Amino acid sequence: MSEPTDLHLPLGFRAAAVKAGIKPSGGLDLTVLASDRDGSAAGTFTTNRVAAAPVHWDRALLPSGSIRAIVINSGNANAATGQAGLDDARATAEGAAKLLGCRPDQILVASTGVIGHPLPMPKVEAGVASAVGKLAAGSEAFHEASRAIMTTDTKPKVVNLRREVGGKVVTLLGLAKGAAMIGPNMATMLGFLLTDAKVEPEALRAMLKSAVDDSFNCISVEGHMSTNDTVLALANGASGSEDDEALAGMVREACITLARMIPDDGEGATHLVTIDVEGAKSTQDARAIAKAVADSPLVKTAIHGADPNWGRIVSAAGYAGVAFEEAELSLWLNEIPLYRDGAPLPFDDAAASANLRENRDTHVRLVLTQGSASTRFWTCDLTAEYVRLNADYTT
Amino acid sequence: MSEPTDLHLPLGFRAAAVKAGIKPSGGLDLTVLASDRDGSAAGTFTTNRVAAAPVHWDRALLPSGSIRAIVINSGNANAATGQAGLDDARATAEGAAKLLGCRPDQILVASTGVIGHPLPMPKVEAGVASAVGKLAAGSEAFHEASRAIMTTDTKPKVVNLRREVGGKVVTLLGLAKGAAMIGPNMATMLGFLLTDAKVEPEALRAMLKSAVDDSFNCISVEGHMSTNDTVLALANGASGSEDDEALAGMVREACITLARMIPDDGEGATHLVTIDVEGAKSTQDARAIAKAVADSPLVKTAIHGADPNWGRIVSAAGYAGVAFEEAELSLWLNEIPLYRDGAPLPFDDAAASANLRENRDTHVRLVLTQGSASTRFWTCDLTAEYVRLNADYTT
Repeated sequence: MSEPTDLHLPLGFRAAAVKAGIKPSGGLDLTVLASDRDGSAAGTFTTNRVAAAPVHWDRALLPSGSIRAIVINSGNANAATGQAGLDDARATAEGAAKLLGCRPDQILVASTGVIGHPLPMPKVEAGVASAVGKLAAGSEAFHEASRAIMTTDTKPKVVNLRREVGGKVVTLLGLAKGAAMIGPNMATMLGFLLTDAKVEPEALRAMLKSAVDDSFNCISVEGHMSTNDTVLALANGASGSEDDEALAGMVREACITLARMIPDDGEGATHLVTIDVEGAKSTQDARAIAKAVADSPLVKTAIHGADPNWGRIVSAAGYAGVAFEEAELSLWLNEIPLYRDGAPLPFDDAAASANLRENRDTHVRLVLTQGSASTRFWTCDLTAEYVRLNADYTT
Repeated sequence: MSEPTDLHLPLGFRAAAVKAGIKPSGGLDLTVLASDRDGSAAGTFTTNRVAAAPVHWDRALLPSGSIRAIVINSGNANAATGQAGLDDARATAEGAAKLLGCRPDQILVASTGVIGHPLPMPKVEAGVASAVGKLAAGSEAFHEASRAIMTTDTKPKVVNLRREVGGKVVTLLGLAKGAAMIGPNMATMLGFLLTDAKVEPEALRAMLKSAVDDSFNCISVEGHMSTNDTVLALANGASGSEDDEALAGMVREACITLARMIPDDGEGATHLVTIDVEGAKSTQDARAIAKAVADSPLVKTAIHGADPNWGRIVSAAGYAGVAFEEAELSLWLNEIPLYRDGAPLPFDDAAASANLRENRDTHVRLVLTQGSASTRFWTCDLTAEYVRLNADYTT
């Protein structure tokens, strides 16, 4: 592992990660992110009806103006675990609260890992105690946290922003994990934003929701929505800066930067695919088209094979549930025009294929003539390695 | 190829298939199915906004009481071809009409194959002439037709039903093709039902729509909807039997039999997966859940790997857009209960895995407690071979 770079840390936060024995690998798997004072917190969560216990716990608390810490375990999702799972999420918060000297409703929890297995509570509780005992404010502690939340990720995902706002310096540190809902264990997407900006909980909620809509809600690896997806933001006001517009911009930038790291690290991926849909009647229409293209195994295998098979892209757009006529649709692939106003354009197959093969970054641009709404979406290609990783496993 | 079995042929139909030179392989690629008298005809089509030219042609004609023939080419989809494609579909019908001595609006057309390339009309027209010249009523002609409509299918798909209805014998012959929207060329699903029953066009339309809803609309391979999907039914009344209820039953049986042959022949598939969803509020809800499970690459790779990873199945159900609580959901996999009322059940992992490995037929049964609606859906697993077939191709 390369030497971690120095981070600009938001004031008043500490972190610790420990090996609690939850992951069979024995790696870091329990993390505490703590603020030394009450903070405003907001969250966005999976819309899956089968939502993990920590999602239920956090949803009931947020938005809040008095959050003190987030406890995260990897290696076990605490999902599809029934009432016992809900009890375990509560007990985790209660244990951390006692150690940190606050109330349980000031503790958020998050889990990622295998589904349907009870949380090993003695290990979790010992891990929380050990982590709280070593909470520290240095870069190393936060780098360890960024690795401890990983499951099948091949690399940690960190964003660090610092802005001078009205004479005061505001710092934001974001951590995320996710590389697909890949096997052998069910994975998921978690994101955590810590900032020393001052903001009301409702305002934080609004800016987080807007940013997540355009970032974590605009990525897919294989389109299978997790039970655990969670993005939490915690703002403790320690910088003394209170400028919602500036903070909203930082939250948005952090979310977009972290979000695209996820398909870029997608299991087995050899291409990061950016899909722009423009000229739609509504953002919802644009997003539906982008998601249909992003989730099509035929589009994803074509890109993997460097095949400029544009018919797969326009036909995926056609089944997105958005009403349009073929003559309203045009397509560019890596800036090469392939289809205009519903009719194919002549192009150099070999050059287009070479272009796809030589660039890890692939750009799909679909333009409609229905309005001015647009969206940007990120996904990755589908490879035999993805299948191998998800199939070659027997319990 | 094994010797084709004798078919019970509906009265008054003839068929022919020829090598028109549309497929690069030089195989059979142009088929004419003809009735010696006007027949009632109905069709159901892709809902893709990027619909192929033959779909536009047929939609404008149907339902009709005076159809005489269906002209089918494989090797070229005539899709995303703009106005030129529409002109080619019309010219194909006009050419066949002239040879058969009827009007162009008595000729249906269907295409399957590569997208975005103009139909090679001189080859198509010569092929139609050659096929019309050799139209024949024997089993061999229809067996040839069943092979000529194939693209990436590994085997022909035929169903043959005969019923005595009110003292008269009614015969139905069904042909279908489809093995996924697989590459290198875009494939599709086509189905053709020929019967000598007598039925009004509107009644035929209603029974076909109902049957397709529960059959061809309940299958997926990778969830990518084609531009060309078409099911046509042609009933010429030659048997003299007119019994809508009996015919509806035959149409339904034929559609279900043909539909499940498609994922069973899915590219690279090693498992045929039947998904039952029961206890839903509406058929629409049941189908949404079944389709989410069927299209999840994580479910499909788990089944391929003989991994009884039930969390992937219940979490796919959870993001289908149907409102339910976890406690309302139970799951059986190959009749093994794995999840009941929102909580996991203990089971023998090794035995469940062996069961999946040893059975090509896989049965997923999801039971809700919301109502009495149910659905049955068919799909196949996702294998590295599927990825290889669709990616290892450069134009």
